[in-house]
Amino acid sequence: MNEHSLTAEIIAILRKAPSVALFSHVSPDGDCLGSMLAIGLALESLGKTVTFFNPDPVPAGLTFLPGAERVQQVLPQPKPQTLVFVDCTDLRRVSLTPDYLRDSIVVNIDHHISNQRFGHFNWVDDQASACAEIVLSLINQLGVTINRDIATNLYTAIVTDSGCFQYSNTTANTHRLTAELIEVGLNLALIHHNIFDQKPLAQVKLLQAALNTLELRAGGRLAVMSLTLEDFQKSGAQQELSEGLVNHARSIQGVEVAVLLKEVGPQEIKIGLRSNLWLNVNEIAAQFGGGGHKRAAGCTLNVSLAEAKQGVCQAIEEGLEIGRDH
Amino acid sequence: MNEHSLTAEIIAILRKAPSVALFSHVSPDGDCLGSMLAIGLALESLGKTVTFFNPDPVPAGLTFLPGAERVQQVLPQPKPQTLVFVDCTDLRRVSLTPDYLRDSIVVNIDHHISNQRFGHFNWVDDQASACAEIVLSLINQLGVTINRDIATNLYTAIVTDSGCFQYSNTTANTHRLTAELIEVGLNLALIHHNIFDQKPLAQVKLLQAALNTLELRAGGRLAVMSLTLEDFQKSGAQQELSEGLVNHARSIQGVEVAVLLKEVGPQEIKIGLRSNLWLNVNEIAAQFGGGGHKRAAGCTLNVSLAEAKQGVCQAIEEGLEIGRDH
Repeated sequence: MNEHSLTAEIIAILRKAPSVALFSHVSPDGDCLGSMLAIGLALESLGKTVTFFNPDPVPAGLTFLPGAERVQQVLPQPKPQTLVFVDCTDLRRVSLTPDYLRDSIVVNIDHHISNQRFGHFNWVDDQASACAEIVLSLINQLGVTINRDIATNLYTAIVTDSGCFQYSNTTANTHRLTAELIEVGLNLALIHHNIFDQKPLAQVKLLQAALNTLELRAGGRLAVMSLTLEDFQKSGAQQELSEGLVNHARSIQGVEVAVLLKEVGPQEIKIGLRSNLWLNVNEIAAQFGGGGHKRAAGCTLNVSLAEAKQGVCQAIEEGLEIGRDH
Repeated sequence: MNEHSLTAEIIAILRKAPSVALFSHVSPDGDCLGSMLAIGLALESLGKTVTFFNPDPVPAGLTFLPGAERVQQVLPQPKPQTLVFVDCTDLRRVSLTPDYLRDSIVVNIDHHISNQRFGHFNWVDDQASACAEIVLSLINQLGVTINRDIATNLYTAIVTDSGCFQYSNTTANTHRLTAELIEVGLNLALIHHNIFDQKPLAQVKLLQAALNTLELRAGGRLAVMSLTLEDFQKSGAQQELSEGLVNHARSIQGVEVAVLLKEVGPQEIKIGLRSNLWLNVNEIAAQFGGGGHKRAAGCTLNVSLAEAKQGVCQAIEEGLEIGRDH
């Protein structure tokens, strides 16, 4: 089926369905929730009955999304014939098994290149910075006018999944669609406040602890920070809250590689590696049984924090020495 | 003169001029430099001789801008007849006096509402998030094709002046113009690295020092941090580097007001105030002889750091008590 007729089929299915169940992935983020809610609100405006499912509760920072209060952690009863999955690479991301899809019409809307195409109709576009880019196109083709609630959901989805237009998935089209959404008349200040100004105090305390260990090595090209079990306990932060902290080290002038070592248990050190322009940190992580991407990778070492730090820093310093000849 | 004929006049002047001198403001930022360089490169492609003036050197974080190496701190000799000022509210922003404009044709391109309209032709649009929005329109009307160097300058200008599309000056048009620039084929990863990953180490050390003093008051609605003279000396940071640090406190969940107190001299405390949604910090600052805007204000107190903190926090706590009835 070519792209055009696939889209037309999906539009036809949704138009026909009296009732649609929507699904989004565990540990929900701005894109899966915003995209799911936007489709649902659009379908409701066409008179359909809609349910919203997510295995987890909506995180505090996203409860402002219009319709968020309707997202449920229980499966819809009775199950409607038409099921739409949003931003889910596979069914495990929704904590479901293939059994659940029996006797259903399954539409799968996603922007992950690794999508498993588990639906009967799979609209997968890995060029989209967010699922919301696909959803905006879908809603436009459904003939539904984008109102403020729908636009707020889609704008939030794009901003969160594109890292506020800074990630490499951002395209000219991302900005063009964003313009279309802003034109509806959004309260950008309030949306940005809801998205960006909701840092848990525990996370700021983790940052404080990490910065207190900041050390530059290799002539300022390597920045290292670490967090001990005690830091996590004292700040009351879960391990997830340390995500992203490594960027405070990566963004220092002259730094090519940044490392954050986290003591998550006795003799259990999780290491996050980020590089800016050239060092392949995937190769560094691989030396310790880990992996990832060229610019972002990780590994876990079962040694003390001091030993982990020494080993990883040595490997990085060697990588920096070998340099671009590599 | 209406807007349309004004633009046409400016285009005609630039087309006719064999030589153009461009000027941008002291303490140059991404918008004034990027916009100035973009116009200059466009005019050069039309065969004109162009000079670029700024009273200050290009900051390290902006030397990647195409053409940045040509920005001079000496006035052009001989002075061409056509002078174009970019992003300058008045002549003092360029360290010049009205005398300098004698016998010249002066074009003034700006987006500040406070622009003094000191030119013969003043293209001032306070709806533009960055001067670069006006400049892109200008270059398009000159009939010059936007190449990668011009687009890199304009994209950087927009991203820096709109706070990466987060400030309230961002409009649908900002995103539409950005799409046009990205379409030229920009290396977004490299540009973002140059813009965002150039934090001086001294600034990160100031953040560390400030976070070590972080205190929540008024049931978590007020977040206070302070920096001593010793913190500035130890980190080697100039006072300017502390700009923006207050936002780390402002963006904590539940916080409405954030304060950063800076000891800039003995008994000389500079205070920065930021609020999120409703408290008018301009009124708070005014109680201490300062001022600013509703959401960002400041004042200076000639007392000890401890006294300043106590006084300002008390005023804020009272403001929070009176609350929205106000």
